[in-house]
Amino acid sequence: MSPSTDRHKQRARQWFEALRDDICAAFEALEDELGEEIAETLPIAEELRGLPPGRFERKAWIREPADEAANQAADEAADETEEAHTGGGVMSVLRGRLFEKVGVNVSTVMGRFSEDFAKQMPGAAEDPRFWASGISLVAHLRSPLVPAVHMNTRYIVTTQGWFGGGADLTPMVPDEADTAAFHGAFKAACDRHDPGYHPRFKAWCDEYFFLKHRGEPRGVGGIFYDQLDSGDWDADFAFTQDVGRAFLDIYPKIARRHLAEPWTAEQRRHQLVKRGRYVEFNLLYDRGTLFGLKTGGNVEAILMSLPPEVAWP
Amino acid sequence: MSPSTDRHKQRARQWFEALRDDICAAFEALEDELGEEIAETLPIAEELRGLPPGRFERKAWIREPADEAANQAADEAADETEEAHTGGGVMSVLRGRLFEKVGVNVSTVMGRFSEDFAKQMPGAAEDPRFWASGISLVAHLRSPLVPAVHMNTRYIVTTQGWFGGGADLTPMVPDEADTAAFHGAFKAACDRHDPGYHPRFKAWCDEYFFLKHRGEPRGVGGIFYDQLDSGDWDADFAFTQDVGRAFLDIYPKIARRHLAEPWTAEQRRHQLVKRGRYVEFNLLYDRGTLFGLKTGGNVEAILMSLPPEVAWP
Repeated sequence: MSPSTDRHKQRARQWFEALRDDICAAFEALEDELGEEIAETLPIAEELRGLPPGRFERKAWIREPADEAANQAADEAADETEEAHTGGGVMSVLRGRLFEKVGVNVSTVMGRFSEDFAKQMPGAAEDPRFWASGISLVAHLRSPLVPAVHMNTRYIVTTQGWFGGGADLTPMVPDEADTAAFHGAFKAACDRHDPGYHPRFKAWCDEYFFLKHRGEPRGVGGIFYDQLDSGDWDADFAFTQDVGRAFLDIYPKIARRHLAEPWTAEQRRHQLVKRGRYVEFNLLYDRGTLFGLKTGGNVEAILMSLPPEVAWP
Repeated sequence: MSPSTDRHKQRARQWFEALRDDICAAFEALEDELGEEIAETLPIAEELRGLPPGRFERKAWIREPADEAANQAADEAADETEEAHTGGGVMSVLRGRLFEKVGVNVSTVMGRFSEDFAKQMPGAAEDPRFWASGISLVAHLRSPLVPAVHMNTRYIVTTQGWFGGGADLTPMVPDEADTAAFHGAFKAACDRHDPGYHPRFKAWCDEYFFLKHRGEPRGVGGIFYDQLDSGDWDADFAFTQDVGRAFLDIYPKIARRHLAEPWTAEQRRHQLVKRGRYVEFNLLYDRGTLFGLKTGGNVEAILMSLPPEVAWP
C-alpha cells in the first residue's frame, strides 16, 4: 500500500467522521427549535409533552468477520502488522421530537471480497482485499410534512480506489418548493466540479431508487454516483465533500419550513404506508443493504434505515 | 397435455378453492365469537367498539404477462386454443376484530419460465412452459397472544408435476401448548401418509424460515415440503389435502384459546417489532415472494402477507 493511498484513506475517513459530527449538531439544533411551545400546537403534542429535545446516542461496533475468507484476511493483515482487525463503525441514533428516528452511521471496514463479489468490484479480480469507509444517514420524521431523507458517501479501495454516494428525498406530501430546493442544492454542488455531473447523477438516482415491482419511484430523487475515479483524487474527494456540505446546508432548511405546520391523521396514515415502500426498496433492491447483510455487516447499523413505524393496511 | 394431467390440474385447483372457502368460513366464525362483550374487556375495546365482526372481501385479478416471453406464451397458448390468457387469482382479505389483517389468495397461472428460472425448475429445461395453482394464507392478529400463521399449498406442472407447501406458526409471546398443538396436528397429518414425512418436513421448515442475517428463526416452525412427486399422484394430492385440513382444524383451536385474554401495551410493542422480522424474512428470503415480484405477479396479492402495522424502533 503506497503512503499516498494511506493518506487518502485517512483523509476520507476523517472527513466522513467530521461530517457526521456537523450533521448531528445541526439535527440537534433542529430538535431544539421544535420547542415545547410549538410541539403543543401539533397533533403529536400529547406524545411529546415532557419529552426533551432529542439527542444522538452513539454506539460503536467491531466488525465480525463474515466467514473463513474474512478471518484469513484479518490474520494476514495482523501478520503484516498492518491491520489488527477487520474494522468497525459508530452508529449515532436520535429519537426525538422532530426526528422520529434518524441514524447516522460511519464505518471503516477492511477484508476480502468473496469470489462472487470480487468479480463485480473494480480492481478486485486480481486481489480480493478491500478497504471501505463511509457515512450513511436515513431520517424518518414524525411530521408527514417533513420529507424523509437519505444521504450516503463512501470511499472504497481495492487495487483501485473510487468514491460513491448521493442523497435523495422522500416527501410524504408532495411539495414542489422542497423538491426544487433539494435538487437545486445538489445541482450547485455538482456544477462547481463538472457541468456533466448533475444530469448524469440525477438520472442515475431516478433509475436506482425505483421500485420495479410497483413501477413507482421511492421518492423525488436527488443524485447518485458510483465508481467515481477521474484520475484526480483531490478533485473527486472535494466533490464528495461538497455533496456532504450540500446536504448539511439544504436539509435543515427544508425541515425548518415545516417545523410548525400541523398535520392531519390522514396525512400521517399516508406517511406510514409510504414508509412501507421505503422498506420494500431497502430490503428488495438496495445494494448496500443486501451487500451488508450478506457479508456479515452489522445488522443493527444496516437496518437502522428502516422506519420506526410502518403500515401495510 | 394428457387428459389425465388436465384432470389433475382441475382437481387440485378445485381443492385449493374449496379449502379457501372453508378457511374463510372458519375465520369469520372466529370473528363472531369475539363478540362485543369480550372485545370491551380488552385493551383494544375502544378501537373495536361499534365494529362489526370482520368479513372477507374478495377481489379477482388477471395476471399481466411479465415480459415478452410471457406474452409469447400467452399468444401460443391462444393459438393452440388451449389457454386464452395467463391466468389470475382471487384475493380474500378480512380486516376484523380478531384478525387485524388476514389474506387468503388462490391463484392459477400459466406461462413460460425465463431462461434462469427454467434451469432451476424440474422438467422446465426441455420446455419452459408451466402451470401453477395454489392457496396461500397469512394471518396477522390484533392480540399478541394469538400467533401469526402462514399456510400455503400448491401444485405445479412443467413437463413434470409436483406438490409443495406447508404451514408455520409465529407466536409473539411463547406458548408451549400452542406450539405443541400445532406440531402435533401436522405430525398426525404427515404420519397418515408416510412416517418419514414429518421429521423431514419439520426440519425443512426450520431451515427455510430462518433469518440468516439475524441468526434467528422466524417463528416456531411447522412443516415445509416441495417437489413432492412420489409417483402416485392421488397419494400426493391426498397428503396435500390433509395438510390443508390439519391447518383448518388446528389454527382456530389455538386462536380460540386466547380469544378473551387481555394483553399489555408492552406485549403489543413486542408484537410490532417481531412483525418487522416477518417483513425482513418475506422481502429478503421468501422464494415465493421474490419469484412473484420478479415474474410480474400480482403485487397486491403477493404483499398481502405483510403485517398491517410494524415497528423498527
